[in-house]
Amino acid sequence: MKKYNVAVLGASGAVGQQMLQVLEEYNIPVDTLLPLASARSAGGKIMFQGREVEIQEATEDSFQGMDFVLGAVKNGMSKKFAPAIVKSGAVYIDNSSAFRLEPEVPLVVPEINGADALNNKGIIANPNCSTIITLMAVAGIAKLSTIESMIACTYQAVSGAGQAGFSELEGQMAAAVNGGEMECKVFPTQIALNVIPHIGDELDNLYTDEEMKMQNEGRRIFHLPELKVNCTCVRVPVMRSHSIAVTVRTKDKISVGEAKKAVAAFPGCRLIEDYKGRNYPTPLDTSDQDLVWVGRIREDLCDDKGLTLWCCGDQIRKGAASNAVQIMKYLIENK
Amino acid sequence: MKKYNVAVLGASGAVGQQMLQVLEEYNIPVDTLLPLASARSAGGKIMFQGREVEIQEATEDSFQGMDFVLGAVKNGMSKKFAPAIVKSGAVYIDNSSAFRLEPEVPLVVPEINGADALNNKGIIANPNCSTIITLMAVAGIAKLSTIESMIACTYQAVSGAGQAGFSELEGQMAAAVNGGEMECKVFPTQIALNVIPHIGDELDNLYTDEEMKMQNEGRRIFHLPELKVNCTCVRVPVMRSHSIAVTVRTKDKISVGEAKKAVAAFPGCRLIEDYKGRNYPTPLDTSDQDLVWVGRIREDLCDDKGLTLWCCGDQIRKGAASNAVQIMKYLIENK
Repeated sequence: MKKYNVAVLGASGAVGQQMLQVLEEYNIPVDTLLPLASARSAGGKIMFQGREVEIQEATEDSFQGMDFVLGAVKNGMSKKFAPAIVKSGAVYIDNSSAFRLEPEVPLVVPEINGADALNNKGIIANPNCSTIITLMAVAGIAKLSTIESMIACTYQAVSGAGQAGFSELEGQMAAAVNGGEMECKVFPTQIALNVIPHIGDELDNLYTDEEMKMQNEGRRIFHLPELKVNCTCVRVPVMRSHSIAVTVRTKDKISVGEAKKAVAAFPGCRLIEDYKGRNYPTPLDTSDQDLVWVGRIREDLCDDKGLTLWCCGDQIRKGAASNAVQIMKYLIENK
Repeated sequence: MKKYNVAVLGASGAVGQQMLQVLEEYNIPVDTLLPLASARSAGGKIMFQGREVEIQEATEDSFQGMDFVLGAVKNGMSKKFAPAIVKSGAVYIDNSSAFRLEPEVPLVVPEINGADALNNKGIIANPNCSTIITLMAVAGIAKLSTIESMIACTYQAVSGAGQAGFSELEGQMAAAVNGGEMECKVFPTQIALNVIPHIGDELDNLYTDEEMKMQNEGRRIFHLPELKVNCTCVRVPVMRSHSIAVTVRTKDKISVGEAKKAVAAFPGCRLIEDYKGRNYPTPLDTSDQDLVWVGRIREDLCDDKGLTLWCCGDQIRKGAASNAVQIMKYLIENK
């Protein structure tokens, strides 16, 4: 069996660490595993497939001989290293948003548009976390009839802000319970015992860049250039699963029964009809696993071609690391 | 100045206690204040306008001589005592949902349809908390053009479940931080570090009764019998303010600028454009005060006659106790 040389760029962050774990879990045939990070994290050790591996400082010479580079760094670093990665001949699967809207860069959720990944020119973009989870939840319905528009309200976990997001919520929870300073560094105001309806930077149309990702990226992933999405992104005091309440409007009327069947049949989705007596998932239920759980599918009372549903998925896994590794797996299996 | 005899039925609960506080704050001219509760709470003392007042056990004979009875009890108790209250000649302002859809019972948010209260036959219903807050936020827009439909996703505080809701979240927060048992008695599953997309009982149309209140009650309050509302009610780990992300669709196109002006001018609303550097409120900002704060008004990207906004309001105050006292104040001032 062919084995692959794989680098993880940003191996010390929350998503990078999860990528290493998912590579192991999926039994990806890895020959050399190269964890890369900034000079600050270099020299640290990680365990991979029973071996201790040292984190190396990422430089433009790091990528020679690699088959795949999984990127878990911010946009600036991603743009800096992408040319060297492409030049090395490796395929770069990038979790940042730096290249997601580049026409030549496939933007891929493997269960939805895996084949797009085969047309890469060296870079494949991993979509935004809420976008992946929402699109997975409605992709079964999209097979029955074209989705014309979606109204989405998110309930996003602090993991979207990485390790620092966890620490901030944990610190604020401790302060709320035991007293002490309520420190706010990562989020614009207190997140413990609160919700914050603003993620990212505001654009001219008064939506944030985070909110516009669901329309911009959804259009590319679904191959629906006219798709309209009205999104409100809200941070909630939850650790690592995102939830989304979404209303989809389709070209033709789809019944609740048809939608349930389609969601249940869609790979990577789990239809919740009776889980511990509930017909819905909560973010705690879906933490640290790879499926998108969908519940409460019902008719939209405002539009007879609409359906409303609730979905949850792990932000670090299917929303980031697992989707990236699944893209790599798709390429290995379909080349 | 005329003074009024006022009973509070359910004076020991979260809403009842808040009613007593609001009666004081609003300087309602109260002669006799009669706090009523179940036999279990009778004998306890409350402070009102500097006097100590003993809680009496509520019986059907309790209401003689009262001008107003503010109700903060569940549906069963409300139905039990309503005939005796009406017979006594007092006006019963009821926070339960027992009479909200009775055609002869006005359902009132004073700023929106205060005049309806004047046509009471002894009972006036106080609307559902999320409904009050959402309708207050969009009522200014409703004055510019008829609202045809709304899609609302709520972020509801635990105070909606009364004192027991507070205790459950506090206990679970302590268990999350310091260890110990994660006790779930009030909510269907853990609420600390989680969100729960199901409040109330599910109906045949797969919406919960809580979700249908926004359509059923909204139609009565706005005098729009055709209003369509698609609501998803979600409990979040927040103490006492509800938040709602709502998309309204109006008969005519309303610009963001017009909507902002209308919201800012609507009594009881506060338009947030720059509050501590934010153009949105959070539930913590709006706790323990009576205004509904509205931010992030922007165009609906799915419909050119739609607007999307975010609002927060204190569930125990404007969502319950303050609205009830405001109805009483309206009657005193407009009779």
